[in-house]
Amino acid sequence: VTGAAAATATIGVDVGGTKLLAVLVGADGTVLAQRQRLVPQRQDPLAPRDRRLPTAKPTGGAEPVRDPTGLVDAVAEEVGALVQRAGDHRVKVVGVGVGLPGLVGADGRLAGAPHLPEAVGADIAGALGTRTGLPVVVDNDATCAALAEWRLGAGRGRRDVLLVTVGTGIGAGLVVGGAVARGALGFAGEAGHMVMDPTGPPCPCGRRGCWERYASGDALGEQARRIASHGGLGAVVARAGGQVAAVRGEHVTDAAMAGDPEATAVLRSLADWLALGLANLLALLDSELVILAGGLAAAGSAVAVPVAEQLGRKGVLPADRPPVPVVVARFGPAAGAVGAARLALEARLVLDEGR
Amino acid sequence: VTGAAAATATIGVDVGGTKLLAVLVGADGTVLAQRQRLVPQRQDPLAPRDRRLPTAKPTGGAEPVRDPTGLVDAVAEEVGALVQRAGDHRVKVVGVGVGLPGLVGADGRLAGAPHLPEAVGADIAGALGTRTGLPVVVDNDATCAALAEWRLGAGRGRRDVLLVTVGTGIGAGLVVGGAVARGALGFAGEAGHMVMDPTGPPCPCGRRGCWERYASGDALGEQARRIASHGGLGAVVARAGGQVAAVRGEHVTDAAMAGDPEATAVLRSLADWLALGLANLLALLDSELVILAGGLAAAGSAVAVPVAEQLGRKGVLPADRPPVPVVVARFGPAAGAVGAARLALEARLVLDEGR
Repeated sequence: VTGAAAATATIGVDVGGTKLLAVLVGADGTVLAQRQRLVPQRQDPLAPRDRRLPTAKPTGGAEPVRDPTGLVDAVAEEVGALVQRAGDHRVKVVGVGVGLPGLVGADGRLAGAPHLPEAVGADIAGALGTRTGLPVVVDNDATCAALAEWRLGAGRGRRDVLLVTVGTGIGAGLVVGGAVARGALGFAGEAGHMVMDPTGPPCPCGRRGCWERYASGDALGEQARRIASHGGLGAVVARAGGQVAAVRGEHVTDAAMAGDPEATAVLRSLADWLALGLANLLALLDSELVILAGGLAAAGSAVAVPVAEQLGRKGVLPADRPPVPVVVARFGPAAGAVGAARLALEARLVLDEGR
Repeated sequence: VTGAAAATATIGVDVGGTKLLAVLVGADGTVLAQRQRLVPQRQDPLAPRDRRLPTAKPTGGAEPVRDPTGLVDAVAEEVGALVQRAGDHRVKVVGVGVGLPGLVGADGRLAGAPHLPEAVGADIAGALGTRTGLPVVVDNDATCAALAEWRLGAGRGRRDVLLVTVGTGIGAGLVVGGAVARGALGFAGEAGHMVMDPTGPPCPCGRRGCWERYASGDALGEQARRIASHGGLGAVVARAGGQVAAVRGEHVTDAAMAGDPEATAVLRSLADWLALGLANLLALLDSELVILAGGLAAAGSAVAVPVAEQLGRKGVLPADRPPVPVVVARFGPAAGAVGAARLALEARLVLDEGR
């Protein structure tokens, strides 16, 4: 960068149950670069958890950080790669935001994460700050996505927005009365663990019949594998390399978007479950707009349209309640990462104001 | 009133599905007087609804108001009686607030009310203002109760409070991030119509298995009548004059408070259902305190303690979420009426500031 001071940018990282997406975002919200990789997983998920080893590479005199699956290493690598790219775009990275799939406390620690149990208790912001030399803020992934869509995307200018991320699990990001709602401990928005049937299938959260057991990307994959094991869903199985056991939710959405009628039917039954849970949330929150984000957002109108149709059907929303528009996140599955970058930018603005 | 200007007071009226409670409240929150009566009901609830006749007595040149059950008449009578009483207390009534059991829009009209269908669409504030000559504001009954408890009662100084009114139905009043949440249309807080089991019993709202089908005062009475019809719950039936068909929820809570073990067991199963729904709401809102209001609040710790115990049990709240205290409204079943009075006071303060 030569001449005038470089423009400001931040890096946002969305750590999902399965995938990790990192984006470099300009102060105006433009996504300048992005990188994706799988979230490192334990080799043997049934082995007893060792919460001490291995640790992330210690830096300087800092205490080693518990990082049993190498999550901090993975995030630090992606951040480093995007800092390199920032030079090409003549922007200066002033901070990093990380969205995590679980309960992120006001102290920035992950207090609970059914889909990322190894990372619970880790001071990810502290470890990453040490590794990257940048200020790091963390928040719940769905809250990050809501921030992105409310400030820059489909929810701009609204006061009451319900954003639902549908991926490995389901999370919600809430804009209530013109502000992002985080709850007393920072734990608001765990809509995926709303019980829809107390006698339903067990959930990693310890309850039964949680919404995400019926309406997540995981649930979509599970249902598709069940149908495929009886010989159906040929177009979906083909997308999974012919292996029924390899079928995942995205194979169903891909086939549905290509017009496959069987896949469309499976996606429709997911949409019915999504609408049922959304109706519960709307009865409570009276949001003016529903935004779908997370991995399922890649399916676009193939999922948003049947959800909106089902929500408008008699007996789905409580009587006398008008239907609510359902749209896909403007930033699609990247909403969480863009929102994490926005979080870092807003934290920086607060710092600057304080000077 | 002689000498100095009289102190300010407001009147609050809580219109429930069954009972109507009116209170005279000083500006400091002291309840100076109260009156109770039954809500006028249609003679034949199965007869086709006539939405035009009879109307409330027209006053002056005002258009007649649709008031098929005489609700406006009943409220106006109670307000008139309390205005009389204000003289004894040397206070001047400057406004009236009314809490209604349903969807109250930003325009003050009742847009939906499963337990008060005849009043839907009525401009109750307008009609009552004409009748009483006082400024009238209306809001949802549970929102009123939350306002009372947050400003003056059990939730003072908190930022995230979940108030649940348990009476004929279930409603919720939400304080989110230090503000009362009303939603985009004023319809927030309809927690009673959260579906807990899509194959459950039908609800007047048009859905199935709504929370209030399992956990309201109505549901408590229904369960008690079922058990009594098989010869059980003698102490409860005695309180209903020996008539099984006359058993209501309050007979169960009365008997439980007197130590009857059968009634206590029935109340405990209600508490389990209450805790299950509260866990859903807390997963979403991350409130720091749950306040129980409505008719069931009369049971005090006989209901709050088993609800808190159940909420603290493993597998009721999602894993990693700390238990949340459950208390009874400081104003008990009067919280809605006190909050309606507070609403009128705050509306008046806004008016005064605008001058």
